[in-house]
Amino acid sequence: MMHRFSLVILVLTICGVRCRMAKAEENVYTLASVREDLIRQEDTIIYGLIERAKFPSNSHTYDEKYAQIPGFSGSLVEFVVKNTEDVQAKAGRYTNPEENPFFPENLPPTSVPSYPFSQFLHPGAASININKSVWKMYLRDLLPLLATSGDDGNYAQTAAADLSLLQAISRRIHYGKFVAEVKFRDAPQDYEPLIRAKDREGLMKLLTFASVEETVRKRVEKKATVFGQEVGLDSDNDGKGKSKFDPTVASRLYKNWVIPLTKEVQVEYLLRRVD
Amino acid sequence: MMHRFSLVILVLTICGVRCRMAKAEENVYTLASVREDLIRQEDTIIYGLIERAKFPSNSHTYDEKYAQIPGFSGSLVEFVVKNTEDVQAKAGRYTNPEENPFFPENLPPTSVPSYPFSQFLHPGAASININKSVWKMYLRDLLPLLATSGDDGNYAQTAAADLSLLQAISRRIHYGKFVAEVKFRDAPQDYEPLIRAKDREGLMKLLTFASVEETVRKRVEKKATVFGQEVGLDSDNDGKGKSKFDPTVASRLYKNWVIPLTKEVQVEYLLRRVD
Repeated sequence: MMHRFSLVILVLTICGVRCRMAKAEENVYTLASVREDLIRQEDTIIYGLIERAKFPSNSHTYDEKYAQIPGFSGSLVEFVVKNTEDVQAKAGRYTNPEENPFFPENLPPTSVPSYPFSQFLHPGAASININKSVWKMYLRDLLPLLATSGDDGNYAQTAAADLSLLQAISRRIHYGKFVAEVKFRDAPQDYEPLIRAKDREGLMKLLTFASVEETVRKRVEKKATVFGQEVGLDSDNDGKGKSKFDPTVASRLYKNWVIPLTKEVQVEYLLRRVD
Repeated sequence: MMHRFSLVILVLTICGVRCRMAKAEENVYTLASVREDLIRQEDTIIYGLIERAKFPSNSHTYDEKYAQIPGFSGSLVEFVVKNTEDVQAKAGRYTNPEENPFFPENLPPTSVPSYPFSQFLHPGAASININKSVWKMYLRDLLPLLATSGDDGNYAQTAAADLSLLQAISRRIHYGKFVAEVKFRDAPQDYEPLIRAKDREGLMKLLTFASVEETVRKRVEKKATVFGQEVGLDSDNDGKGKSKFDPTVASRLYKNWVIPLTKEVQVEYLLRRVD
């Protein structure tokens, strides 16, 4: 048995190293590297969910009238997200085509020498940013599921946790551009006729694999259970104590919003793919 | 057996609810609430370690000469930490006595109505900030253990991950102020003579419980193993695949730096306690 596991680990390790090398040196995304990246992004989203659930709802964070910030009109979360994005933009975050800002208007330019990020995507990709939908979903749908009601005064920390989680979810959803590109390159003959016919419904159908989506939802919920459990030194109690958040929130997030919005990004990308 | 577990969970739950109520409504920290908070902070630090380990070393992030940011002289990580702290200061982060900035000089004032955070600490606490030591330890000792060598161009994202982790570690270390205050209130007769004699060594001895420290290190390493594992749907492979980082880095972080620096904060706090 150990030999089989060792072999699996060896193969996974070689694949991992290879995928990273491919991305860094040859600037190429592959079906395998994209899949690996999507799976790793689940973990980041789950850590983000747990860290936001640490705070209560802290509704003042989202109240446009609560803070009086000189030169700014809006809620604390808008202030923190917009201004932190400005800082990160100067540090070069948005030169990576995997990143998409929530407040792209008047974003300052990067002050960092340019890095040779992959030009893997069709140029039309740059015009796709559905963060307005992500933001709305986050505030209206996700937060009420995630945060228990209450106020502990930690509004800045709450907004910082919101930002990390929003960025992780946004990155995952917009990664649909890369998913669509590898799928297109893999079978252009399947996609081109639908793209030329602007057949959104047909594309959506071609991109939908119910069994794969079910696997993703199940895996995400399992990860949320494992990473969200209280771990103590008494092994008998592991997983039996209270959880840091409801793991079904993670699978509902994927089912209701992450998966559908990723497919929306894929369709938008494909419709621009043969321009 | 199940009955015993249920009882333990019930007691823990009631204690958890009580501790939070005590803190929020009566503004009081207790031995139990401080212990609970310290344990929860371990999780945040471990998620932070995993998220920083996601990126390679990205040495340009730490190079003072790499970026040319108008009006700023220093490395990208300094730029991101200092400017994000400015944003969070305006949103009120540092009005909570549990928080300590890395760049306290010229920090802008808060723009948020004041929240009744507990005045649990002696006023001398405000002058204790050992983030210069935390920063040095982080860059010189922790990062080389944590990040594999390489450069993927994600310097802003790396600096943002550094900031989250630095804040979590700093919060844990400065929580020593609260630990010292509850210990002092619990047994002032043990502490006062040593404080009046400015007996640092005696205080350090009084604050040191080797077996408790050993338990913390073991628990942290176990948490790092559980939260850092790759979780898939095939249960047989759980914990057998590669880990997202070396779990011993978490226990070494606690052993070599978090625990000693927390005790340093406790001693500094106690020395000011009877002024």
